[in-house]
Amino acid sequence: MKSTVLYKGKAKNVHSTSDENILRLEYLNQATALNGKKKDEIEGKAPLNNQITSLIFSDLKKRGIENHWLEMISDTEQLVEKVTIIPLEVVLRNVATGSFTKRLGIEEGTILPKPIIEFYFKDDALDDPFINDDHIAFLAIATDEELAFIRNQTLKINTALIDIFSQLDVTLVDFKLEFGKNVAGKIILSDEITPDTCRLWDKQTGQSLDKDIYRKDLGEIVPVYQEILTRLKERGE
Amino acid sequence: MKSTVLYKGKAKNVHSTSDENILRLEYLNQATALNGKKKDEIEGKAPLNNQITSLIFSDLKKRGIENHWLEMISDTEQLVEKVTIIPLEVVLRNVATGSFTKRLGIEEGTILPKPIIEFYFKDDALDDPFINDDHIAFLAIATDEELAFIRNQTLKINTALIDIFSQLDVTLVDFKLEFGKNVAGKIILSDEITPDTCRLWDKQTGQSLDKDIYRKDLGEIVPVYQEILTRLKERGE
Repeated sequence: MKSTVLYKGKAKNVHSTSDENILRLEYLNQATALNGKKKDEIEGKAPLNNQITSLIFSDLKKRGIENHWLEMISDTEQLVEKVTIIPLEVVLRNVATGSFTKRLGIEEGTILPKPIIEFYFKDDALDDPFINDDHIAFLAIATDEELAFIRNQTLKINTALIDIFSQLDVTLVDFKLEFGKNVAGKIILSDEITPDTCRLWDKQTGQSLDKDIYRKDLGEIVPVYQEILTRLKERGE
Repeated sequence: MKSTVLYKGKAKNVHSTSDENILRLEYLNQATALNGKKKDEIEGKAPLNNQITSLIFSDLKKRGIENHWLEMISDTEQLVEKVTIIPLEVVLRNVATGSFTKRLGIEEGTILPKPIIEFYFKDDALDDPFINDDHIAFLAIATDEELAFIRNQTLKINTALIDIFSQLDVTLVDFKLEFGKNVAGKIILSDEITPDTCRLWDKQTGQSLDKDIYRKDLGEIVPVYQEILTRLKERGE
C-alpha cells in the first residue's frame, strides 16, 4: 500500500492511504512514560493495543458514540477516519490515584462522587501542561461550544467504558482521551483506548492491569495487556 | 484593645476584636516570595500596604463592589468585617507574564484579548496547586453558583481596578484576589489589594511597580510601593 508517514508518535505512527479521508494507524511495540523520558521496546505490545482499541471503539460505535475507528487490517494496523487532532488530552477520573492525590492532598483510592475532568495542552515541548477553559479559549484550541461538547462526550464515554470494563471485572479508575475534527468539521473520539491510556484495576485483587505496571516497574506488561484482551474477547462470546 | 491572634499570615496577622463581627488586620513588614521560601523584613512596607488597600477597597465600595474593609485605625492596622476565607486564590491576567508565559509557551507581555481567570487551592502544604472547577466542587471549596459569582465579581473588580490604575498611569497586568463568606453567608472580596498582590507596570517606562522588584531582586520595594501610594493619593485630590 503506497503511503506516507504523516506523524511519528510515541505509541503509533500515522500514515496516509490512497483514500484522502482515511488514515492508517501503525501501532508500535514502544512503551513510554514520564512524557517520553522513560522509553522501551516491548515485543508484543502493538498487536495487543491494536486489538484492544478495535474491540472497544467498535463497541462504542454500537452504543452510538462516534469515533474515528474503521477496521483492523493487520496485527498492528488499523484504518481510521481522517481527523485533525485537537491538541487536548482529556482526562477523566473516577477514582483518585497517582500524582492527582499528591497534588490535591486526597487519599489514594478515594472514589470520586462525581467524575472529575481535566484538560491538558498536548504539547511535548511544554510537557503537556494542565490548563483551564480560559486557557483553551485563549490558545484557540476549542470554542466554548466545542469544549462543552467534548466534556459531554467524555462523560458519555465514561458511562460506556465503566459498563464495558465492569463486564471484565475491572474498575475503570481514570483514562485519557483525544478528540479530532473530521473532514465534515465534526468532533469525534480519536486516538486509542487501551491499558496505555486507562488505569484499570482488577475488581477482585485490586491489581493494576495497565501501564502503571511499566511506569512503576511492577513487572511485564504484555501478560497484563493480554489479560485485558482475553477478557474483552470472552465477553463477546 | 483586648484581642486574640486568630491567624498569623505571611503579610498580615488577623486579630479578634470586642465585636464578634469585626476583625483587626495587622499588616506586617514582611515580604515573602516563592511560597515563603524567600522571606525578608522590610521596614516601612506594612504602613504602605495598609494605606494602599484602604484607598482601593474604599474606592471599590463606592463603585458598589462589596468588600470586608471598614476603616484604618493606625499606620499598620485596619478593621474589617469578619469573614471565613474561601481557600481559593483567584488570579486574573490581562497581560501574559512570568511563569504563565513559560507554562503555555506565550510571548512575554502579550496582551490577552479577554482576561484569563485561574483558581489556585490556597494550601501552603500543597504549594497552592492550580485547580479547575471540578476540583473546586470535589474539594467542596465552593458550589457551582458560588464559583460563578466569584468569577463574575472578579471580572467586575478587574474593570474597576483597570480604571483606578489607569488614572495612576499604571497598567494592571494581573492580580490575585481572595474572597470570604461573611456572617450573613454572603461572599465578599477580602484580603488585600496592594503591589504585593498585583503586577503593576508604569505606562511610560514599563517599569515594575510591584513585588516583582522583590521577587527578581531588582531593588528596594519601599520607594516603589510609596510611588503607588503617592499616585493614589494625588488622584484623590
